[in-house]
This record gives sequence, structure tokens and C-alpha cells, in this order.
Amino acid sequence: MLQLIGFDGDDTLWRSEDYFRQANTDFAAIVGRYVDLDDVHERMLATEQRNLELFGYGAKGMTLSMVETAIAITEARISAADIHALVELGKRVLQHPVELLPGIRAAVEAVAEHYPLVLITKGDLFHQERKVAQSGLADLFGRIEIVSEKDPATYRRVLDEFALQPAQFAMVGNSLRSDIEPVLRLGGWGVHLPYHVTWAHEQEHGLAADEPHMITVRAAADIPAALAQLHQRALT
Amino acid sequence: MLQLIGFDGDDTLWRSEDYFRQANTDFAAIVGRYVDLDDVHERMLATEQRNLELFGYGAKGMTLSMVETAIAITEARISAADIHALVELGKRVLQHPVELLPGIRAAVEAVAEHYPLVLITKGDLFHQERKVAQSGLADLFGRIEIVSEKDPATYRRVLDEFALQPAQFAMVGNSLRSDIEPVLRLGGWGVHLPYHVTWAHEQEHGLAADEPHMITVRAAADIPAALAQLHQRALT
Repeated sequence: MLQLIGFDGDDTLWRSEDYFRQANTDFAAIVGRYVDLDDVHERMLATEQRNLELFGYGAKGMTLSMVETAIAITEARISAADIHALVELGKRVLQHPVELLPGIRAAVEAVAEHYPLVLITKGDLFHQERKVAQSGLADLFGRIEIVSEKDPATYRRVLDEFALQPAQFAMVGNSLRSDIEPVLRLGGWGVHLPYHVTWAHEQEHGLAADEPHMITVRAAADIPAALAQLHQRALT
Repeated sequence: MLQLIGFDGDDTLWRSEDYFRQANTDFAAIVGRYVDLDDVHERMLATEQRNLELFGYGAKGMTLSMVETAIAITEARISAADIHALVELGKRVLQHPVELLPGIRAAVEAVAEHYPLVLITKGDLFHQERKVAQSGLADLFGRIEIVSEKDPATYRRVLDEFALQPAQFAMVGNSLRSDIEPVLRLGGWGVHLPYHVTWAHEQEHGLAADEPHMITVRAAADIPAALAQLHQRALT
């Protein structure tokens, strides 16, 4: 039976990937003044993935990867002024106001009436703390965990802190790779709320569409009913 | 009476500021090819402090601030190749192997025989996790808190999680600003272990040299005795 519900932050509670994607579009426009390539986005993604083990997730690492990719792509012909523009793109991502996604506040409030909640969000500590504070949702969560990677070990550590088994836990999020798959691997439950854009890195996962421990919903308003359904499944 | 001892990470358990300082020296050498200024370090520090509210602490933010400062100082004359060298400086800081400071392992082990320990470290989540893992000290700490700022509110939150009062807590660290002053402000205790270099930002504090809740030690080996002394003071 479910005892704790986890929510993801970026692209589940609030808009995020759109800002990163806009930065990538602007990045391609800037380097496009120097080179005519059709694989700018692929090269940027390759740099980001290579740097992940050093930078982790988040806008600062993305910005450094943009600078690195731009210098490589242009064979060091890019001007300092344009590199400065790349740094400003990164700053813009860090500064955007927090915009809650449609219906999410009501959904979180409804779930909070039945279960304790934990917010489990990945990325830059400082940026995530800012977003949590600005979201106005912090008080609904008994605990906020900002983690560097969302893998089974991370979820197990969080559950250990609550002295819960994975079967007593359901995670709500937009990323099959980060929010759903690792929890299901442990024996937990997942509510998948797809977002209209997903970073290519987050698209890699090994889940079937009909996982019995997962329900995919179309809107935030459907989250409470999905959890009630999983709760029933967990009982039987 | 003391019930919990906190340890800082950077420049208390392991070497850190030396690497940042080396990066700053190398930065000055690179921009020195373009301009002859005697306030390069001051301008870099000003950029870093201005960016703190957006980047928080850590090597990625420092690297972005180096890029920004270099472009400003050289009036955008710096080459992309040299900006790439700045990014590499930042990567080197993120990659350095963890080097424990002299005597610290024995000191932490000795303190762990008498008190539960918490590691409270500030900066980049991903980088700090790496350093904790590589330090080989993680098992000595019941809990590891990676925080974005070390202010009284942060320490109070950590103490709340342990259900302790500040008077039951002592913090061991090299930074008067981050490790000692906020804990003393709450009514807690501090063991100050100065490091041979301190980032200018960390030198700002409002503590007197003879604070009765603080003992300054000369070496890690003196930490256990200093805590025993504070423990006696806390009893009376």
C-alpha cells in the first residue's frame, strides 16, 4: 500500500526544458554565423553527454558545454563577443521565472491530502533551490531532495531515510528514464505525465508501454486518480 | 552537552582552495597576454561575487566567471583558443584527485568514537559528492549535507533534522565566515582549524578572537582535545 509519493520538479511541476531548448536554438543561430552544419544539435548533445560525468546536470554545465562546442565547431574562429552571448544564454536559463505547469498546484494539493510528499529533483543545487522557493509549493512537501543523479541507488537512499520499502512508494514525473524506470526497477510505482518536449538524453529508457506498475496520464488533473488506482493495485 | 559534531569538507578534510587559487593564477597569466593590469584578481573576485546569487559556489560558476571577466578585461580581444584554455582550467579543478589534509583521518576517527558526525559541505552538488566518495571518509559520517549556503538558517535546518538544539552542536572547519560564525550566532560551538589560504570571499566575518564558544587549533590532531574542552564548557 502506498505510503509516500514523490514528485519530480523540472517539466513536472514547472516549465524547464523549453528554456534549455530555447538556449540550444539560440546557440545554433550564433554558431550558424560561422559554419553551415546540420549536426550542431547532435554535436552539442555529444559534448554535454561527455561532460556529464564532470559537470553533472544543469544550466551551468550546459553553458560550459556550449562554449566548448562552439569553439570546436568554429575551429576557434568564434569571437569573444559571441562567446559572451553564449554565457548570457546560460544566465537567462538560470534566471527565468518559475512557471507552474497547468493544473499542477491543484493536483499536488489533492495528493497531499492523502499522502506525505517528497520532491525529488535533479540538477544544479543552487538553481533547483531557487526554483523550489519560487514555486510556492515547498510547504506541500515534507522533504525536498535535490540529487545529482536519479538512479535506483538514489531512490533507495531516499526511501531508507523514510524507512519505507519501494513497494510503498510511487513517483510522479515526466521522464521515463529518471522518474519512472529506476523506481519500477526497485519494485515501486510510477505515474508518468509526459511533457511536450524531452531532452534527448532523457529519452533513453527500457520500459514497456504496459508496465503494470506504471500509469501514464494526459494531464496533471489525472494524477490523483492514477495514484488511487496504483494504490488499489498495490493492495492486491 | 555536545551531541553532534559537524565537519566542513573543502580545506578542512581535503585540499581545495589551492586548486582554485592555481586556476586564478593561470587565469591571470592568460589574460596577461592581452592587458597589463594589476587588478586582475580583484576584477575576477568582483565578477564572482556578483554572479554568486545566480551561480552559487563551485568550480563551474568560477569557470563561467573567468570567461566573463576575461572577455570584459580584454575588451573582447581574447581568442577562442584562450577561452578554451579557461574552460580547461575549470575542468582541472573539477578533476583533481582528493587529497586529505595532514592528520585529518585520525582526527575524524578519534572524534567519531565519541560523537555522531555530520559532514556539512558547500558548493557544487556533483563535485562535492565526488569528493566525498573519493575521500574514503564517507562511512565515518552518519549523514552528509551538501548545501548551497552556510548560514544560520542552513545549520538550523540540519539541526532540526537531528532534533537537536544549537548548544548541543559543534562545527569544525577552516572558514570563520561559513563554518564558525553562523553556528556561534545560533548558540552553538566551533573549532576553527585555519587553512594556509582562504578565498577572499570567506575572509569576511564578524567574530572576535576570544569568542568563548570557539577554540582555534593549529593542527587536525588538536581537534579531539578542543572538542573535549568545549564539551566541558557546555556542561557548566
